[in-house]
Amino acid sequence: MSRLRFRISMSLDGFVAGPHQSVKNPLGVGGTRLHDWAFALATFRAQHGMTGGEVNESTAVVEESQANVGATIMGRNMFGGQPGPWSSANPWNGWWGEEPPYHHPVFVLTHHPREPLAMQGGTTFTFVTDGIESALSQARAAAGGKDVSLAGGASAAQQYFAAGLVDEMEINLAPVLLGEGERLFDGPSDDMHGLELVRTIATPKVVHLKFARQA
Amino acid sequence: MSRLRFRISMSLDGFVAGPHQSVKNPLGVGGTRLHDWAFALATFRAQHGMTGGEVNESTAVVEESQANVGATIMGRNMFGGQPGPWSSANPWNGWWGEEPPYHHPVFVLTHHPREPLAMQGGTTFTFVTDGIESALSQARAAAGGKDVSLAGGASAAQQYFAAGLVDEMEINLAPVLLGEGERLFDGPSDDMHGLELVRTIATPKVVHLKFARQA
Repeated sequence: MSRLRFRISMSLDGFVAGPHQSVKNPLGVGGTRLHDWAFALATFRAQHGMTGGEVNESTAVVEESQANVGATIMGRNMFGGQPGPWSSANPWNGWWGEEPPYHHPVFVLTHHPREPLAMQGGTTFTFVTDGIESALSQARAAAGGKDVSLAGGASAAQQYFAAGLVDEMEINLAPVLLGEGERLFDGPSDDMHGLELVRTIATPKVVHLKFARQA
Repeated sequence: MSRLRFRISMSLDGFVAGPHQSVKNPLGVGGTRLHDWAFALATFRAQHGMTGGEVNESTAVVEESQANVGATIMGRNMFGGQPGPWSSANPWNGWWGEEPPYHHPVFVLTHHPREPLAMQGGTTFTFVTDGIESALSQARAAAGGKDVSLAGGASAAQQYFAAGLVDEMEINLAPVLLGEGERLFDGPSDDMHGLELVRTIATPKVVHLKFARQA
């Protein structure tokens, strides 16, 4: 069965985005500090058209997280653009330029209908207005037997986690404090929904905590 | 120089105690789940008069945290008893019986004066009413060149951390959610006060994150 896999970077104080997220500052104030460990990697730089960078223990974690993924789900906030109905005069086609790095079907959770959007390199954005379970069904069907990646943001991740639909969760814990912003776990539930810590890999910049549902 | 060292167990959602702490339930509802990893250890059991238990990667972490400590500081809430002035009719002498496991001077932060209390086995409780810096000075003087352990609870730890007085912080991250309770990092500051992640040791039950001030 195709698994729903979710990964997110979180600060020591539990934030997955800084405060005051905007089109100019999608990760919120200070939010890029959650991802410094990734920005430094050669594998990340290569995927974004840059050279150089490090190869370290995080490299294998990133490569593993990207392997065997046939479709992606993301929330409207992560896809970006102004909130509310989609503008046809000035369409927002995501953060990633003409050729997004997904190269497979991407399902965007939204309250506002929109026609599918085909980009270069095999990425298509399908806008789903009838809920998280519908998006998951569509993503599983599109994944062709591979897994589905839940890309975020925090709200989409919280909804799938709370519904018990996440099969694997990788938390990249950055050893920094943000002080404010958007928390991944904001109570009041203590339910891990069957996920258990199965692997930890640490570098001085990040601690990768992998949780999975035990068979 | 004598270092101020602090260790605490924290849930994945950032709580260091559950809700509704009381004399009957000092860790709050669900709070013991933060310490399951420790309760299972042979070294913990031996210190509390029990036999059996595990020896694993956490054993060395606990032993390291207890080595070279000459004095301890704790908050009133951790020392326990009813809040407010000390009762002479029914004195509260801590949770630990006649011979507490410290075996050195312990300084208790409180707003209410009380005479020092000498217990068996070398533990003395001194009640400090003039603030965290005074308690630290007294503890350093009493430690005889060894380090000072900041035992908790959350409020005392927060105060020393926010004042930039902590030299070393070990967070024992339990891979569980509490959903509510007392957070260690409850914003709004993003200041790590010079502490950096210097070592991570993981087991399936706990991830030990050691932060230290770089020279």
